[in-house]
Amino acid sequence: MTGTHITATTQFVDADGVRYAYRRFGSETGTPLLFFQHFRGGLDNWDPLVTDGLAKGRPVILFNYAGVASSSGENATTVDGMADGGAAFVKALGLSQVDVLGFSIGGFVAQSFAHRYPELVRKLVLVGTGPRNGETNPDPKVLQVAGNPVPTEDDFLYLFFSPSEASQAAGRAFWARRHERKDQDPPSSIDTLKAQAAAIGEWRQPRGERYGYLKEIRQPTLVVNGSNDIMVPTVHSFTLQQHIPNAQLILYPDSGHGSQFQYPRQFVANVTLVLDATVGQS
Amino acid sequence: MTGTHITATTQFVDADGVRYAYRRFGSETGTPLLFFQHFRGGLDNWDPLVTDGLAKGRPVILFNYAGVASSSGENATTVDGMADGGAAFVKALGLSQVDVLGFSIGGFVAQSFAHRYPELVRKLVLVGTGPRNGETNPDPKVLQVAGNPVPTEDDFLYLFFSPSEASQAAGRAFWARRHERKDQDPPSSIDTLKAQAAAIGEWRQPRGERYGYLKEIRQPTLVVNGSNDIMVPTVHSFTLQQHIPNAQLILYPDSGHGSQFQYPRQFVANVTLVLDATVGQS
Repeated sequence: MTGTHITATTQFVDADGVRYAYRRFGSETGTPLLFFQHFRGGLDNWDPLVTDGLAKGRPVILFNYAGVASSSGENATTVDGMADGGAAFVKALGLSQVDVLGFSIGGFVAQSFAHRYPELVRKLVLVGTGPRNGETNPDPKVLQVAGNPVPTEDDFLYLFFSPSEASQAAGRAFWARRHERKDQDPPSSIDTLKAQAAAIGEWRQPRGERYGYLKEIRQPTLVVNGSNDIMVPTVHSFTLQQHIPNAQLILYPDSGHGSQFQYPRQFVANVTLVLDATVGQS
Repeated sequence: MTGTHITATTQFVDADGVRYAYRRFGSETGTPLLFFQHFRGGLDNWDPLVTDGLAKGRPVILFNYAGVASSSGENATTVDGMADGGAAFVKALGLSQVDVLGFSIGGFVAQSFAHRYPELVRKLVLVGTGPRNGETNPDPKVLQVAGNPVPTEDDFLYLFFSPSEASQAAGRAFWARRHERKDQDPPSSIDTLKAQAAAIGEWRQPRGERYGYLKEIRQPTLVVNGSNDIMVPTVHSFTLQQHIPNAQLILYPDSGHGSQFQYPRQFVANVTLVLDATVGQS
């Protein structure tokens, strides 16, 4: 082990004129697992129970997209552009192949990345996310809260968890864990918010046959969501599983967009089963 | 351990005038896991990899419904009637609580059993199944093949597995495992086929608010299916998860009705995670 979520130093690597901030920790062997973060989020918006849990079996790499928080440059205004940045970052680290875990807009980026750079991706984990040009969009109130200048704990409890007492309590526990690290990355800018909003808007547009690109994602894939995600409606996860040829779906009970933060131990166990499975394993 | 799928002797217990055939094996401690079988199936239609895998952590109990194969009596003509028989059987064994794994029509029975005998059921696993009065029914060709007088290997490969080479190969491997035991239970009769078909027909009828009873199933539940089940369409599993308050859904890739026989090791691992979780575990 080389460090943990809390202790890993923030490092930087230059690629295509951007200085990318990242942290690498966990096992020194195994296919590295690269995390693609949610709307506006950075290095410190993950859950230490999830990242450290998965880092037991492989190196974990967290990074900021171009323009996010401590990364330099500007956030791309398309999902494909963000995936191009991810590919430049991976190559700059000298890695030939990674596993990818993408959450929310990070799941859009992960799909584009796996589809357009298939040689770089061994396996794929798509969390709280959906396909290009999905069937439904969230309630306008959701978008309003997600755009608050400084997202608060209450915003996250509303956006990422179900209204039940158990889910809200799990959300508060996550919020505490997510702040355990002292030297938190700075928040991302309003320009980054605007660029990512543009990328989400572009992702909602049709391109070719609906869901056609999903048939071309050949990596073993795990799709995960909560039972009632109000940000990226849960049915989108079902759609992903139905169209990606080798995809397993897991939906957790009484949960929302952040189900992996509500059930971190189960999530780590479920993801580990898929990442550790050999090809064709029954 | 007291025996295995292959070695456990067939025992009998009398309840409400029926002599039920059953086999019990595996761990001597833990909440027993009772299996409710599919259309026309009996003690030998399970997969030794699944039953022995789950028996490592708890006693496993396989049984035949009344009228099926080596059980005496007549199969009930409603799902509720079949669940009443299950309750009589459990009480005759002197058990106060069990976990239940129901497959296909056995999943219908498991829902009725958990809903109407909640004190008898700790946790629920619903495989390749759907709710009362679900949205769609299978293709008529499926029903025709399922009614063949003597179901063949080819029938099972068509009904339980996807058409892909990998799924068909997994199906043939299952078929070999399923015949490893020498003293196979006799097949069930045409009268039993007719009674179970009537029970399925009754289950398709509305009763009260659609899916309303699912909200009253309070047990922690795992719903499992293949990505494209032609017998009980996969969307029914999504519906179950969306309406049972504490339900997790797992859909496996490139698979059909018998996904648990295609991915027996993953299935055992996934079911074990849910059965072994303590209440409220994250």
